[in-house]
Amino acid sequence: MTITTALPHLEALLGSRLATSEAERRLHGQNETYYPNTPPEAVAYPETTEEVSAILKICHEAGCPVTPVGAASSLEGQHLATHGGLSLDMTRMNRVLAVHAEDLNAVVQPGLTRMALNEALRTTGLFFPVDPGADASLGGMTATRASGTTAVRYGTMRENILALEVVMADGTVIRTGTQARKSATGYDLTHLMVGSEGTLGVITELTLRLQGIPEATAAATCRFSSVETAVNCVILTIQSGLPMARIELLDHMMVRGFNAYAQAGLPEQPHLFVEFHGTEAGVAEQMALFGEIAREFGADGWQTATRAEDRNALWKMRHSAHYASAALGKGKHIWPTDVCVPISALAEAVTQAQKDAVRLGLTSTIVGHVGDGNFHAGLSVDPRDADEMARAEAFTGALAQTALRLGGTVSGEHGVGLGKQKFMAAEHGAALAYMRSIKQALDPRGILNPGKLLPPET
Amino acid sequence: MTITTALPHLEALLGSRLATSEAERRLHGQNETYYPNTPPEAVAYPETTEEVSAILKICHEAGCPVTPVGAASSLEGQHLATHGGLSLDMTRMNRVLAVHAEDLNAVVQPGLTRMALNEALRTTGLFFPVDPGADASLGGMTATRASGTTAVRYGTMRENILALEVVMADGTVIRTGTQARKSATGYDLTHLMVGSEGTLGVITELTLRLQGIPEATAAATCRFSSVETAVNCVILTIQSGLPMARIELLDHMMVRGFNAYAQAGLPEQPHLFVEFHGTEAGVAEQMALFGEIAREFGADGWQTATRAEDRNALWKMRHSAHYASAALGKGKHIWPTDVCVPISALAEAVTQAQKDAVRLGLTSTIVGHVGDGNFHAGLSVDPRDADEMARAEAFTGALAQTALRLGGTVSGEHGVGLGKQKFMAAEHGAALAYMRSIKQALDPRGILNPGKLLPPET
Repeated sequence: MTITTALPHLEALLGSRLATSEAERRLHGQNETYYPNTPPEAVAYPETTEEVSAILKICHEAGCPVTPVGAASSLEGQHLATHGGLSLDMTRMNRVLAVHAEDLNAVVQPGLTRMALNEALRTTGLFFPVDPGADASLGGMTATRASGTTAVRYGTMRENILALEVVMADGTVIRTGTQARKSATGYDLTHLMVGSEGTLGVITELTLRLQGIPEATAAATCRFSSVETAVNCVILTIQSGLPMARIELLDHMMVRGFNAYAQAGLPEQPHLFVEFHGTEAGVAEQMALFGEIAREFGADGWQTATRAEDRNALWKMRHSAHYASAALGKGKHIWPTDVCVPISALAEAVTQAQKDAVRLGLTSTIVGHVGDGNFHAGLSVDPRDADEMARAEAFTGALAQTALRLGGTVSGEHGVGLGKQKFMAAEHGAALAYMRSIKQALDPRGILNPGKLLPPET
Repeated sequence: MTITTALPHLEALLGSRLATSEAERRLHGQNETYYPNTPPEAVAYPETTEEVSAILKICHEAGCPVTPVGAASSLEGQHLATHGGLSLDMTRMNRVLAVHAEDLNAVVQPGLTRMALNEALRTTGLFFPVDPGADASLGGMTATRASGTTAVRYGTMRENILALEVVMADGTVIRTGTQARKSATGYDLTHLMVGSEGTLGVITELTLRLQGIPEATAAATCRFSSVETAVNCVILTIQSGLPMARIELLDHMMVRGFNAYAQAGLPEQPHLFVEFHGTEAGVAEQMALFGEIAREFGADGWQTATRAEDRNALWKMRHSAHYASAALGKGKHIWPTDVCVPISALAEAVTQAQKDAVRLGLTSTIVGHVGDGNFHAGLSVDPRDADEMARAEAFTGALAQTALRLGGTVSGEHGVGLGKQKFMAAEHGAALAYMRSIKQALDPRGILNPGKLLPPET
């Protein structure tokens, strides 16, 4: 037990908001992917920054691990308390603290989900664009540097956080950034925290950039004879400077998954799902230009969705990719993995991934935010089947090597967590030692989400 | 002499590319603003990353300060070797290493200037948008987190660096980021380096995002009866979501400066200079929408510039603001300062700055990238006039306090250097200690640009 010394102090601080029951612990040991249930030793439900600070002071003193968690939708095991200790459940800190419509920003707590934020913004004419598949918490999205279908237009969490309040390992509360849109003063601690997966500090408040809801929006789908022609269409579209709001690739296996899960009724060919944002005239112009490019690549089955309900249905389906992938393998789990490559290398990376899945005898979907060069493979696996798990591991390894060979990264948006640590040295080389130095400087006792992001030193 | 031990080793390494003459040292002690000439003890001209690494190994061993410098156009004294030691002149590392047109990026050396890059891109249909007034080096722009007139549309250096090669204090060479447009793997060392002013590492290679040259571009100028109406026009324009490519405010004093310096022949009233990028139809639509908003605020004297030569003349004049400010005070130097505030607070911040200048008996221009909430004051000062210098210092202090009171930052783009250190504690509070921890972790001997960015510990 790493929590023994801390426990009475935490109980005194939190009362019934500290849980140690088997049920609560197992609930916080769950994950959406293939990792076994990994229960923490206790679960804390703070309601204020001051409480988070007090919890960290206690845990810092006691050397007790603290693993923050929001919606628990992370895909590389980031929220699992693999070293025991405390699961710091941030879901009660879920308020919108301020909407500064005139400055296009909102101040929120980390447990608020992206959909709850957009619901709260409904009367303002503004929205928050970053949309990973899950209804993730905004704190978790920040900690994992999440992105989604609209990153090609609006950027990822990296581009959409103006400022943070963070509780550091010893309980010190800091603020990074200001309400201004840019600053040139001092080290960029905001970006250091974005993507740090809870290993450098606990985010307790976020100032997010908002976007105006476009005057006009239109979506469309079309299909291609091969994944190469679909990807080449994407490449030319991006190179043409068309300000795509969304441009998503689904391979034929992913389409099969949507047909099985959501009765999509689509021909089992590679598809692009696209969306345009702008003025009425601008959207019409973009749609026409994209149509010309798509036709050059033999696009077929063109369907448009200009009514809000049709578009919503389309993107709701797209966001169910994880479960649609699962629909292909009865009773199986999904091992999701993602990479991101320079867009010129996208066709090679996608086709190599498809070949690797076939070679390894795996069922895999491919779906991606291809305007960014980012795509996902969703492998159907049975965690009890050691041979299949070994083949899935070989697949993710091959995919990571492909991405690195092509000048890309081993994860565009899922992050490192547990699953991608083994590729960190290959991707970052000598820079990895400096990441360790920063971790040591900011969390010298190593209590913040230990065992994540940084591979063990050899 | 802090360089004594290092000097023979540096001479052996660099031969005639190590200079210790009075003339070379004084050349590297110059700056564009009010700081006295601050010569380094020697100047090195490396030509390769390996040489930069070898230089840092020598200086690390000897405890010799190293201050990197590019075009020497920094405005807060960032490139001055205030602690002696070596001025590391990066201007010979000025090559374009690769243009990946299909991936919209370029790999360049740090001594290349922004204008030289755009010249090299001329046949590609691409451009690099970030444009501080000076023809700064891209390494220096990265190190100071520079921005410029187009940041409102394309972002600052923060948004436009994909990857860096950096030589760390002890000579270790690292790479941060990849050629992919996004990544979720590990701590964001790229953004830690951007804006670190040479205090954490020496940038030796940059991968920059490029933009497609828009199909159509149009610029316009108009004038307002007061700075408040001009700023309120900006606020509504930004809130309306118009994708402005540039929106620059000039107060009546700045206009007077342009009239004196460049025979602009403009009425001495507040002006906005704007630019639109897009398709032909899109630009026409944006221009019409902006025109409607501007007329609501009583804009007058509307002039458009659709021919490239007219637009170039307009922005060339705008980029001469530093010298145009100097034209108002015969024989005087310019003390440039900048702040950035939430856009809703912009009118209050600008008018307060104007009042403060009058109250303190100072001649000052105001010009700004107001779409970002960022503006500059250019004070005419005589560094030998202690009373005037004290009043200028009082002005910058008051301006910084105004920015912080309104939720902003003490510098939107000039950075900290020497001049803004005294405000770091007020802006960053408890976060400042963590910046010091990072500096200590990455440069334990404190040889990298000592005396900059971080205020002395008290």
